Amino acid sequence: MENEFRLSDLAARIGASLNGEDAVVTGVAPIEEAGPGQVTFLSNPKYARFARESKAGAIVAKSRVEGSRASFLLSENPYFAFACLVELFHPPVRPPAGISPAAAVHPGARMGKGVSVAPFVVVEEEATVGDRTVLFPGVFVGKGASVGEDCLLYPNVVLYHGVRVGSRVILHAGCVVGSDGFGFAPSREGFRKIPQVGTVEIGDDVEIGANTTVDRAALGATRIGRGTKIDNLVQVAHNVVIGSDTAIAAQAGISGSVKIGNRVMIGGQAGIAGHLEVEDGIMLGAKTGVAGTLKSSEARVWSGTPAIPHPLWLRLSALLPSLPELFRRVKKLEEGKNPKGEE
Amino acid sequence: MENEFRLSDLAARIGASLNGEDAVVTGVAPIEEAGPGQVTFLSNPKYARFARESKAGAIVAKSRVEGSRASFLLSENPYFAFACLVELFHPPVRPPAGISPAAAVHPGARMGKGVSVAPFVVVEEEATVGDRTVLFPGVFVGKGASVGEDCLLYPNVVLYHGVRVGSRVILHAGCVVGSDGFGFAPSREGFRKIPQVGTVEIGDDVEIGANTTVDRAALGATRIGRGTKIDNLVQVAHNVVIGSDTAIAAQAGISGSVKIGNRVMIGGQAGIAGHLEVEDGIMLGAKTGVAGTLKSSEARVWSGTPAIPHPLWLRLSALLPSLPELFRRVKKLEEGKNPKGEE
Amino acid sequence: MENEFRLSDLAARIGASLNGEDAVVTGVAPIEEAGPGQVTFLSNPKYARFARESKAGAIVAKSRVEGSRASFLLSENPYFAFACLVELFHPPVRPPAGISPAAAVHPGARMGKGVSVAPFVVVEEEATVGDRTVLFPGVFVGKGASVGEDCLLYPNVVLYHGVRVGSRVILHAGCVVGSDGFGFAPSREGFRKIPQVGTVEIGDDVEIGANTTVDRAALGATRIGRGTKIDNLVQVAHNVVIGSDTAIAAQAGISGSVKIGNRVMIGGQAGIAGHLEVEDGIMLGAKTGVAGTLKSSEARVWSGTPAIPHPLWLRLSALLPSLPELFRRVKKLEEGKNPKGEE
Repeated sequence: MENEFRLSDLAARIGASLNGEDAVVTGVAPIEEAGPGQVTFLSNPKYARFARESKAGAIVAKSRVEGSRASFLLSENPYFAFACLVELFHPPVRPPAGISPAAAVHPGARMGKGVSVAPFVVVEEEATVGDRTVLFPGVFVGKGASVGEDCLLYPNVVLYHGVRVGSRVILHAGCVVGSDGFGFAPSREGFRKIPQVGTVEIGDDVEIGANTTVDRAALGATRIGRGTKIDNLVQVAHNVVIGSDTAIAAQAGISGSVKIGNRVMIGGQAGIAGHLEVEDGIMLGAKTGVAGTLKSSEARVWSGTPAIPHPLWLRLSALLPSLPELFRRVKKLEEGKNPKGEE
Repeated sequence: MENEFRLSDLAARIGASLNGEDAVVTGVAPIEEAGPGQVTFLSNPKYARFARESKAGAIVAKSRVEGSRASFLLSENPYFAFACLVELFHPPVRPPAGISPAAAVHPGARMGKGVSVAPFVVVEEEATVGDRTVLFPGVFVGKGASVGEDCLLYPNVVLYHGVRVGSRVILHAGCVVGSDGFGFAPSREGFRKIPQVGTVEIGDDVEIGANTTVDRAALGATRIGRGTKIDNLVQVAHNVVIGSDTAIAAQAGISGSVKIGNRVMIGGQAGIAGHLEVEDGIMLGAKTGVAGTLKSSEARVWSGTPAIPHPLWLRLSALLPSLPELFRRVKKLEEGKNPKGEE
Repeated sequence: MENEFRLSDLAARIGASLNGEDAVVTGVAPIEEAGPGQVTFLSNPKYARFARESKAGAIVAKSRVEGSRASFLLSENPYFAFACLVELFHPPVRPPAGISPAAAVHPGARMGKGVSVAPFVVVEEEATVGDRTVLFPGVFVGKGASVGEDCLLYPNVVLYHGVRVGSRVILHAGCVVGSDGFGFAPSREGFRKIPQVGTVEIGDDVEIGANTTVDRAALGATRIGRGTKIDNLVQVAHNVVIGSDTAIAAQAGISGSVKIGNRVMIGGQAGIAGHLEVEDGIMLGAKTGVAGTLKSSEARVWSGTPAIPHPLWLRLSALLPSLPELFRRVKKLEEGKNPKGEE
């Protein structure tokens, strides 16, 4: 099923330069498993030994690894070049166009050209689905919701009424967009629900992972900017605004009304408390708990709960195991003993 | 599409008093975006400057903000009053009653009056669905499960066999109720599954977020009390018992057999270890890790992992960044130097 | 609906020995609720007082509890024996065999004997479903995916194209297997998606919880070994390899390319950073954040973020609340005061 390429041809197509024999390759494989007919890649020079031991026919890398028998496809951005290369061997396969007779598409929905609508999909009244967009089985597009062109909505994705999704967006299975934000007014009789009458706006080229949830705004819109990538099981609360080209790893949680800038990187299981701001370009380590607005002028990388600059967090993490010893040392000082002298 | 109200009329309907001109308003909007024909609200006096800058026609608030040109709708509980007001402008719209011919409703299921059952819903044998309850597409109501009156089950909600859901309950998309608890007996041949033969009981007026999971009990029942609100992606394990009017934020995790009282507030990503108790009225900060039973007589608010009283946690968080300095200070003392004298 | 057993008969079937009167019992119940006609169990001697207070007709336990009026079914592994006993009273009920006419099964799919396929299930081309496997409503089995024999796939489980699932596997509602791994090459024009062209392989006797996500590999396969049990809302990233008989509690997150051994126990909300290894038999406390490879030769149980040996973590947790006091003590020492002398 895989295609076949000459390395010199591959090099030209992915903007790399060939260093070594111009062999023919038929597929891609992980560096430990690749054979002579396959290409692999090395993005981190730390793993150079894998390149030396690899039986791969060719390796995409930043520079040649001495001692390796493979041909090299050299690129300034080998990870990027490899992405292009994988796509050459595995061009995306979309289900054929057509609306399944077992789907429930409202006659008042606007369906683009070449859409692919699987069985058991529901598209409600006044909803819009752009050209060539694919709706897998069990997808729900609520009343008045819109999806752009060339999108992929995997099985059981749910778009509540009125939400707006851009073009070339990928939503993985079970992703929910537009559920009610968590807003309740406490009173003596218990909580009263604040109707969540806002919406969600998702920009072009966004990808959102499986079972991630994006709540609609109470008023206004929850917004996810162009090109932002969100992993699985992430929570994006109501009225959150996320910039462009930001990446959010699995199980992170963004509380209500948080503002996240462009090109921010958020580690897995990180959490950001409500109404805070995370400026452009900031990185949050995994499990970071943000309890105050983070300014890139103070630190670019943050970790810990509450979040502190990452270098300080590393120092604390290294010192903490010595804390019991510190308590003993202070006790000795109080007792008038000089521990250095005793040893 | 929005309605139109005179402010004096609105004030009467939401139990507020009008302070300012009796204008006509046609909608609600966030305080930064509201125009002269719109109402907004101010719950936190901290944001008073937004009220001064706002172009809103009227603001629901506890007291007048000097310098604002808006009319004020004054209320002791402005958040609550605003909730009522939003509902006046956006009365809830329910899908029309009727059972879709594309739903699979077992003839032995008991369906109430005025239910709305969308395409691709499954209601199994001996299940009960109360009057006026709405089942969105892809909802599954398992054998013998019951749902009360006036409930909303959004797309792809799953109720396993035999679980019981009260009235006026809202379950958001992808929420799962009644999956097997995580119970396995280790043995030399590996794990043996403990059949989970209990159930789940959800009280009236509960709301549960998207993709949240509530496991059935091993024996007996997992219980969620009346009026409790649970956010997205929360885990409620088997045999958990949660009281009334409790709120649990996104991605929190409640381990098996935990008992949570009434009016408890649990922050996002907090976790509670198995078999513990959290007393009435306790608040857990975001990311708190509860490793022992929490008594309200010791502290009302808890944070950290393991959880400690919140004021102590705040002091520790403020001190920790000085820990490297403390190590240096102790070293100087040990060396017989008086650092204060040196400076 | 429940069955009826004589205690001597039960003892023989579950490999226990009867100590006490040979009564007839008709069901199982929690220790606080069980009546004279019911059996319950006591796995943790810590809860012996419940056994003394219980009205249960019989208790499965390791040894007799003095002061209890119940008969005892004594077993070396009472939890395991109880699992067998519960199954005797509640033999698993599977939906009847047959393929619903409201399912969409591709003619090119291979369906085993005695499969049960509910309405609104989709099985795509070249997919394989083994004998007696049950697909609940809304399940999606993608192109070329395979599921073994005697599996249970609860409602809305999604298997992306080409993933392979073993026999006797249980996947709870909303579980997603084979979604794209989170792989993007940054460039000046934003992120470029790395096509995720690998797959997922799930071994026999695995159970995976509701709304858990298992990503397909970038290249090669994400693997979950035989007998491993995974709870709800867990994230398993691309290229993760998990051994056999490992248990992973709810909301844990396993980053890309992590290797987890056999018989590992991972607590709830724990997280493991990318490319690390967790050796056989290691236990991670709840909320642990693993930032380096864990060797069982260093410690068997780990806790904290970054993870440290559990006994050290316990000591630190006990000392931390005294940190403000330590700062004061050091200040006094610096001021030349001997705090001990002053008191």
